[in-house]
Amino acid sequence: MNPVVLHEEQIRNLAGMSPQAMQTVAEGFIRLSAGDVNLPPVLRIDFPQVQGEVDVKTAVVQGWDSFAIKVASGFFQNNTLGLPTGNGLMLVLSAVTGKPQAILLDNGYLTDLRTGLAGALAAQVLAPQHPVVGVIGSGTQARFQIRALNLVRSFNELHIYGIDPQSVNTYAQEMTKELDIPVIVHENPRSLVEQCTLVITTTPSHIPYLKADWLHPGLHITSMGADAPHKQELDAEVFRGMDIIVCDARQQCAQLGELHHALHEGILPDLSQVWELGELLAGTQPGRMSEEQITLCELTGLGVQDTAIARYVLHQSRL
Amino acid sequence: MNPVVLHEEQIRNLAGMSPQAMQTVAEGFIRLSAGDVNLPPVLRIDFPQVQGEVDVKTAVVQGWDSFAIKVASGFFQNNTLGLPTGNGLMLVLSAVTGKPQAILLDNGYLTDLRTGLAGALAAQVLAPQHPVVGVIGSGTQARFQIRALNLVRSFNELHIYGIDPQSVNTYAQEMTKELDIPVIVHENPRSLVEQCTLVITTTPSHIPYLKADWLHPGLHITSMGADAPHKQELDAEVFRGMDIIVCDARQQCAQLGELHHALHEGILPDLSQVWELGELLAGTQPGRMSEEQITLCELTGLGVQDTAIARYVLHQSRL
Repeated sequence: MNPVVLHEEQIRNLAGMSPQAMQTVAEGFIRLSAGDVNLPPVLRIDFPQVQGEVDVKTAVVQGWDSFAIKVASGFFQNNTLGLPTGNGLMLVLSAVTGKPQAILLDNGYLTDLRTGLAGALAAQVLAPQHPVVGVIGSGTQARFQIRALNLVRSFNELHIYGIDPQSVNTYAQEMTKELDIPVIVHENPRSLVEQCTLVITTTPSHIPYLKADWLHPGLHITSMGADAPHKQELDAEVFRGMDIIVCDARQQCAQLGELHHALHEGILPDLSQVWELGELLAGTQPGRMSEEQITLCELTGLGVQDTAIARYVLHQSRL
Repeated sequence: MNPVVLHEEQIRNLAGMSPQAMQTVAEGFIRLSAGDVNLPPVLRIDFPQVQGEVDVKTAVVQGWDSFAIKVASGFFQNNTLGLPTGNGLMLVLSAVTGKPQAILLDNGYLTDLRTGLAGALAAQVLAPQHPVVGVIGSGTQARFQIRALNLVRSFNELHIYGIDPQSVNTYAQEMTKELDIPVIVHENPRSLVEQCTLVITTTPSHIPYLKADWLHPGLHITSMGADAPHKQELDAEVFRGMDIIVCDARQQCAQLGELHHALHEGILPDLSQVWELGELLAGTQPGRMSEEQITLCELTGLGVQDTAIARYVLHQSRL
C-alpha cells in the first residue's frame, strides 16, 4: 500500500488552532523532558551560491508507533524570483516497520502551526492570567502566535511593533479584522514592552534590541526569533532580571538562540537553573507562581514538535 | 505547484538497465572524484527494540539544478510480519529554490538499480574483456549485478554460489530463463573463484570467507556486500594480492567495508594507492592494463548515486 499524500489545503482543514493539536504538541515536550525522545542531530545542506539551506529534522518518541522526518528549506534569493523563501514537507514513517505512511505536502504550514502552539503552551504556564499582549515582529509567526494564544488567554487589545511600516500596517489590519479588538501600533519596542505583560518576540534580528531596563514586575516574554547561532533578539543582560527562565530543549539552546548568547557572555554560568517547557507542562517544575514574577521562555523549535503535529494530522485524517 | 508523485511501477517503466541510466550514475562518480560533490554525513535513526534502522542520505553536485534526499529503512523483524525488511523513497528538490519537485515512491528499487549500474561501471574499466562470470550470493543484487553487467560485457555462462540452497535454486532458475545461458551452481565459493575471471560478491556476510590463496592472474572482483562497519566478505589478506584496488569513495571506505578492515589490520598502510571509480571513469587513473592483472573494486553505495538516478527518473518522466 502506498503512503497517503496530503496537500496543504487538506492539511489546513485537518489541523488548525485547536486544544487537541496543542495537547499533542504538549505531549511531545513532556516526553522529551522525560528523556523518552531520540532527537538525532539535524542534517544540514548549504547552497552558498544562492543563499540556500536545507534542514532535515526528525525525532522518535518511545512508544509512539510513527515518527516524522521533516525537510525544510530557506532560499533567501527566492523573493527576487517572486517565490516564497521557505518550503517544506514532512514524511511520516512507521516506527515499527519503517514503512512510509504519509507524505504531508504542507509547504511549511505545520511548522508554523506547531511553533504557534508551542507559544500558547509557554503562555499557559508562564503568562499572567489577564495579560496585556504585545508582539514584536510582523511576519508569519506574529500571526500564528496570536491565534494560538487565543486558546489559553483572553485579551482585549493587541500591541504591535515592527521595523517595516507596510508589513506592520498589513498585520494590524489583519489582526483588527480577525480578533475584533483594538490594535495599537508602537513607534518603538521599548514602549510596547513597558506597557505589556505578555511580550512575544518573533523577529529574525541579529541585533539584540530588547534591553534589560525595560523589564517590569509581572512581565512574561516568549522569544522565538533566534533559531540559529547568529540570531539574537534579547540583550543577554535581560537574563539577569528573570525569576524563571524556560526553554524548549536545554541541549539545543546551549548551541543556538538567546540562551547560548547568555552562556557565551557569562551572564548565565550554565543551564542548571533553566527549566524545559516539558518539565513545566508535566508539573515537575513550577510555572509562574505570582503576578509579580518576571519570566522568559525561549523556543528554538524541535523535531519532536514536528513528529507530534504530523501524527496529529494523520490521526485526524483517519477519523 | 505540487511536486510530482511517481509510484514504483511508473518508476520501473521510466528507468531500467540502460546505457543512459548507467551514464548518469557514471557522471555522479566522476563529479565526486573531481571534488564537485557535497556529501553530508548520513542522518541515522536506530530502533533497537525492533532491530530497525533508518538512513537519510543526500548529495549535491555543483551545477546540477536538483538533488535527492533518500530515506531508506531496514527493519529486520519485518519478515516475521510477512513484510519486506527494506523500504524507501526519494525526494527530489530544486538546488536553486529548495522547492520539492518530485517524490519517488520506489520502495528501494532505485537503490537496487543504481547499485547494479555501479557494478557495471566497475566491470567496464576493470573486468577482462571476455570474462567467465561468477556471483557469490543469491539476493536482489545477485540479479541486478548480472542484469547491469549485460550492458558492458557479454558472457555465455554464469557461475553461482550461495549458502541457502532454496534461494540459490530460485536464482539459478531465474537467470537461466532470463539470460538463456547455462548456470553452474558451485558447492563452495573456492571453486567458483578459481574458475571465474569476474567475481561479484553480494552477501551480507560478517565473516570474511573469500581467501587470498584463491586469487589467480586475470581475476577481477567487485565486492559490494560490506556496506556497514561490521560486514566483511574478503579476507583482508586478499588486498596484498591486488595489482589495482578501486573503491567508490575513499572517505566512506575508510569508515566501513572491506578497505576499512584492511586498514585496521594493517594490510594497507593507507588509501594513497587506492583509486576511486570516478577517477578511472574520468581517465585520470588507468583501469585494467593487461589480461594478467588482478583487480578489485569495492562499492559501499553513495548518496551521489541516489541524486544521479533520481534526476534521471525525472528527466525521463519529462520526455
